[in-house]
Order: sequence, then structure tokens, then C-alpha cells
Amino acid sequence: MINNITNVRGIKCWGAHIGVKSMRRDLAIIFSEVPASAAATFTQNKVIAEPIKVSKGHIKDGKAQAIVINAGNANACTGQQGYEGALAMARTTAEELNIDEKLVIIASTGLIGEPFPTEEIVNGIKENASKLSDMSSAGSFAANAILTTDTFAKEGFEAFEIDGKTVNIAGIAKGSGMIHPNMATMLGFIISDAAIDPKLLKVATKEAVDKSFNMITVDGDTSTNDMVAVMCNGLAENKMITSKKDPGYKIFKEHLTAIMIHLAKLIVSDGEGSSKFVEYRVVNAPDEDIARKLIRGISDSTLVKAAVYGRDPNWGRIICAAGNVGVEFDYTKVDLYLGVKDNLIKVLEKGKPQDFDRNFMKKLLRESQIEIKLDMCAGKAQAVGWGSDLTTDYVLFNSVYTT
Amino acid sequence: MINNITNVRGIKCWGAHIGVKSMRRDLAIIFSEVPASAAATFTQNKVIAEPIKVSKGHIKDGKAQAIVINAGNANACTGQQGYEGALAMARTTAEELNIDEKLVIIASTGLIGEPFPTEEIVNGIKENASKLSDMSSAGSFAANAILTTDTFAKEGFEAFEIDGKTVNIAGIAKGSGMIHPNMATMLGFIISDAAIDPKLLKVATKEAVDKSFNMITVDGDTSTNDMVAVMCNGLAENKMITSKKDPGYKIFKEHLTAIMIHLAKLIVSDGEGSSKFVEYRVVNAPDEDIARKLIRGISDSTLVKAAVYGRDPNWGRIICAAGNVGVEFDYTKVDLYLGVKDNLIKVLEKGKPQDFDRNFMKKLLRESQIEIKLDMCAGKAQAVGWGSDLTTDYVLFNSVYTT
Repeated sequence: MINNITNVRGIKCWGAHIGVKSMRRDLAIIFSEVPASAAATFTQNKVIAEPIKVSKGHIKDGKAQAIVINAGNANACTGQQGYEGALAMARTTAEELNIDEKLVIIASTGLIGEPFPTEEIVNGIKENASKLSDMSSAGSFAANAILTTDTFAKEGFEAFEIDGKTVNIAGIAKGSGMIHPNMATMLGFIISDAAIDPKLLKVATKEAVDKSFNMITVDGDTSTNDMVAVMCNGLAENKMITSKKDPGYKIFKEHLTAIMIHLAKLIVSDGEGSSKFVEYRVVNAPDEDIARKLIRGISDSTLVKAAVYGRDPNWGRIICAAGNVGVEFDYTKVDLYLGVKDNLIKVLEKGKPQDFDRNFMKKLLRESQIEIKLDMCAGKAQAVGWGSDLTTDYVLFNSVYTT
Repeated sequence: MINNITNVRGIKCWGAHIGVKSMRRDLAIIFSEVPASAAATFTQNKVIAEPIKVSKGHIKDGKAQAIVINAGNANACTGQQGYEGALAMARTTAEELNIDEKLVIIASTGLIGEPFPTEEIVNGIKENASKLSDMSSAGSFAANAILTTDTFAKEGFEAFEIDGKTVNIAGIAKGSGMIHPNMATMLGFIISDAAIDPKLLKVATKEAVDKSFNMITVDGDTSTNDMVAVMCNGLAENKMITSKKDPGYKIFKEHLTAIMIHLAKLIVSDGEGSSKFVEYRVVNAPDEDIARKLIRGISDSTLVKAAVYGRDPNWGRIICAAGNVGVEFDYTKVDLYLGVKDNLIKVLEKGKPQDFDRNFMKKLLRESQIEIKLDMCAGKAQAVGWGSDLTTDYVLFNSVYTT
């Protein structure tokens, strides 16, 4: 009806309010009835939160059976106390669910540098483990329990076929609330009943994250707690995917990527203090890496973002941002389009400004979803990414944050 | 990916924070590109909120094209000022969307008896009408913007076939937060692209509401603002359903009912201060009306609800509550089952207590979803309903509400 992670075979979950946050749910538990293949990508920030350290160790063997996440306290910059709290979080979950501690992945999000409320978390896990459920509301509880400043829960679901078996994949995510930069953790948890070898899952996860969570920009920061974890428990009973040549591998990776893109786009949509969603597309690039770098450079540019907010078809700023990326870029060879889906207007052809109806363009740019397409006319690769605008509200919020 | 109301053909929507509530989104607009058949059921409370008065008038002709909902202020017990505000809300929406005022349905939820913030609402509608979008995040925005004390957004979606055409139906709802009895409005908005005659839609809506929203109990109160509205814009291009004998009618009604049941169950799941979800089933009843009345009586009983919280298989209270309903009820003829899905234990056979393992039962009743089934052995009718338990938290919250 609304399909979510509870629609994946063998998955039960829960999300509860245990009191770390004052009003909202703040503890999520996701449990697979059988051990699952697992893979994850972690923050590239040099400052790493305690739960990330624990989870990195636990996922090394490519197996997991439970994920537990708390919101309200990031358990970052908390030293030995925090590290022990993270261990206790994993241990308690393992005990309550009667599984090996190494099969527990943990994550935290919230304030950085506050002592970790180990006792509250441990008691919360004990109290809620018996409530694990496969009812769709339990999925909503979990999706909501991982949020911090997000204004809505982010969920995705797809069903597809491998070897004539129906495979389910679903995920939840949280984004980075711009107005609270020290809470700006991005988390994603993808759950599937596909049968896939952990080594291949690791490759697929990395590639899917590169096309999704790594292609969005809200305010350009990577937090101490960022993490995307994937669990596949095999209960779909497709033939175990063990090789990249396996036809099931391509299908699985396609849907894994689709779920992650869906969640990543929802994160951008929820950028606090932003007013527009922008899809950036670079086509006919020499290679995909160049295309991606250009998108990240353009979508991160504060001048481009401010122009989007102002509904200003200021192509000069886009070209300028592209030129700053550091890859080969000859603007006299590119075409540039601005507008909205199904109504893109060419503003630049081979570097030459085109005549267009500025009033009509202004009207297009009033919509909530904008598209910017750069045609490099220099190859066959392409990439797509997503970003928000930069609003006066954002500046206002962030200019008074500590005062 | 996550299908919601934006997956219905021709539907655009938005949900924004306009400042009536301090932090969360508080204005939702749902718009159909073409006028739609429409029907609604309204609160039975003798005190009727101003938006209900306006919407009742507007929906009389069985047509609507837009629904606009504000949260934070219920516009109830607000007199002439509120009535004029409600009219302004409909008028502004009509002007911005360039449609007839009579095609606008309005709803409000929030505090009762506060002056209606007409200027904020009017400006909010003006500012957000141009943002209407069919992106799935816009659906989430709308689903979140109608909430008050709810801890998660309630959405549902189904696709099905009529005459070989795919028909989409989706809905959003908000529930009654137990801890805020004066905000306890229940709202449901169901949107479909089915083609159906308004008169038949009215009949189907009434019957579906009776099997869904009218079969849940959280704390038994009906608010001044309760409303369930349905819009069907016909863009699925099935042959217009004009008769109850039309095979499409049965299919449509089945899915309309399913969406409403899904949303109603989510509302129960979100009962603040409740710890369990209970499904009540009365089978082999002389008629459906008797079965429904018994369910409402049992699920409303504070003694039954307290026993569910205490994990007490206290069948005496269930029989007692059933006896109080006022319908013919001979307990010496009934069987009663308690437990969880797929594990129901007979505790009463033809009125005689059965031996059962009390420790095992206690363990079952620790789960978050409980089932109670009453077999009347007296006919072929049945009904199902849903409720929550009564917790010490609920009493605590509500005992100090005004002090």
C-alpha cells in the first residue's frame, strides 16, 4: 500500500521515542531474520564519529543482521566514553536479538561533542527489541526515528525480478538540515532480499553511492557521521549473484542505484532554507568522471545557487563555475540549456549567447524544479546530479546560529 | 519509487511552512489539472468548524478541482471572523489557480477557538500556488503539512485496472494526537484518476468511510473539523462508472476502501501515549451492523484497553464490553480468541473458559500488534476494526494537560 522496508522479506523494524530528543522518535532498529550480505560506505571526513569506527570493524566480513541508529546525539568527538557507548549500543542489540555482536551495524546522528547518553540508549534498545514488527507503520516509525532537522521522512521501495523471483529493495535516509550545520549528517540504509555475494555487493554499493548520494550538494559539507549501509538477506531465493557477468548483477545494481538516487533527491528537496530543487545534467562529456566533477563544481557554486534563487538566467556564472573545476573545459565548444523538465531553453550555443524570451524564462524559473543541462559536444559520457538554491533565508538562519 | 498522490494523473501539490505553526509545514495545496468528481463525509459533531461549512456548500454539486488545508489553527468556534477567513482561503486558492471558487474544498486543523490567521493563510496560498509540482517530494510535503501532533506522515497508494486502463488511487491523512484533545482532528484526502459519476462516488465514499475511518478508535472523540474528501479526475480514461452494476464500480470501491483502511490503521498506529495496535475482528455475526457495533464497543472500553496494555488476557472485560453495546449478545454461544496474527489462542468456547498457557500468552501479548477475535457462531456477517491500548503515559499526559 505504501511499500517500505517492512516489505522486504524477513525484515522487522521499529522506531521509538526514548528521550534523547525532546519530542520526536530517536531510536530505530532494523532486523533481518537471517544474516545478510552487507556493505557500506563511510564519511571521508578526517574526524570520524565513534559509531563509524565500530561499524567499519563489524562490516569487514561482509555480514550483518541488524542496524541500530540513534538520533539526537552524534557520538562524535566524545572520546573513550563515546567509544564505549558505541560498543554498548552494538552489544545490547546483539544480546536482545540473540545474534553475534559483529552482525550489528550502528549509526548515530545529532549534536556533536555532547557526552553520549549510553544508559538511555541501552535501555531504549532493551525496551524496544520485543516490538520489532513487519507492519508498514513500523517502517514509518524507523524512517522517522533517524531524522534530525529533516521536515519529512525519506523512504523508497522497488520490486523487480531476477531469475523469475521477485526481489524487493527498500531504503530510508536522512539529510542534512542546512540550518544546523553540526547536525548535517547524511545517513542511508538500503535493505533487500536479493541473494548476492558480499564482495560484489561492496562493488555495487560503491558505484551506486557515487551516482547518487555523492552527486547531491546541499551545503557541500561532509559530516563526521555520514554512512550508507546495505543489507541483502537472500530471502528472495534468486540464484546467488557471484559474478559481475551474472545477468542478475546488472539488474540488482540498477535498482540499488535507483533507490539511492530517489533517496538522495529527497534529501536535496528537504534542504532547509532552500526554495528550489535543481537537476544538473552534463551530456556528451569525454568521460563520466569529468561530467561528475563539472556537476559538483557548478552545483556547489554559491553564485550559481543565488542566481537560481533570483530566477536569473545568468549563464555566465555557470560557465565560470565550470571553468573553476580544474578539468579541461572549452566554453566555446559547449551548449547550455536552462529551464524546467520538458521545457529547456538553449541559452548558449558553442559558447555564443542565444536570443531567448527573458520574461518567459523568468516565468519558467519560478517553478519549484529547475533543470540545467550542459552539452559538452566532446564525447559520449554523461552524469546527473542534484542541488538546491541559496536563499536569503539560508543566510539569515546561518548568520545568527551561534548568537 | 515511493508512490504517493503525485502519481495520480494530473495531480500537482505542495506543502509549505507559512508560519502558523512555529516549525513544521502548515499549508497543503492539492490541485487537479481538470475538474474532478468529488465527495466527502464530514464530522457528526454538533459544533462544526468554519471550513466544514464552506466545503459542505462547495461539494454539493459533486465537483472539485483543488483542496487546500492549513494546520495550526482549526478555524473552529471563531464566528464571523473565521467564516470570512474560510471564504478568503477558498477564494484566494481559486484566484491563484484560475478556477471557480466552488471547485475549492478547504479544511483546517489545529487549535480551536483562536482567531483565524486569515492574512497569513491568504499570503501563504499566493506565495505557494506557483510551486505546485508532481515530484514525489511535493507529495511528502503535502502529507506532512496537514499534520499536527502526528509523529509521522500518513500516505497510501494503489494502482489497479478497470477496462484494461491503469487507475491510480492515493491518499494522505492525519490522526488524532491523544495528548492534545483539542487538536484531535481526523482528516483524510483521497485522490484518484478514475472516471466515476459523482453520485456513485458519494455512495462509495460513505461505504468506504464506514469500513475504515469509522472503525478506528483512539480516544473515542469526534472533532469539530473531521473530514474525508475524495476527488476523482477521470484522467485514467476508463469508461465512466455510472452504475453500481458496472464491474468497474466494485473494483474502484474495493481499492477506495483499501486505501482508507490503510490510512485509518496508520492513524491508530500513531496514537500518542499508546503502546499497542489492536485488530478486532467479529465473525459469523447475524449482520454487519451488529458486528461493527460490537467492535466499537469493545475497542472503546477503557477496561479492555488497560488490559491490553497490561498484557492481561482478561476475556471477562471483553465479554462485559460486548454485553454493554446494546445489541443481542449471548456470551454462552460465542468463541473468543486472543493473541497475535497467525497465533490466535482460543480462550473461550461457547462461553466456557479454555485452558491455555498463560506464560506463553503473556509473551505473545508483549508484541506491538495484538489481535482479538470474537466468533459469534450466529450468522455469516463480519467486521474488522482497529484500536490502541490505554497506557499510564496517556493518563499522565492527559491528567496534567491544563495545569
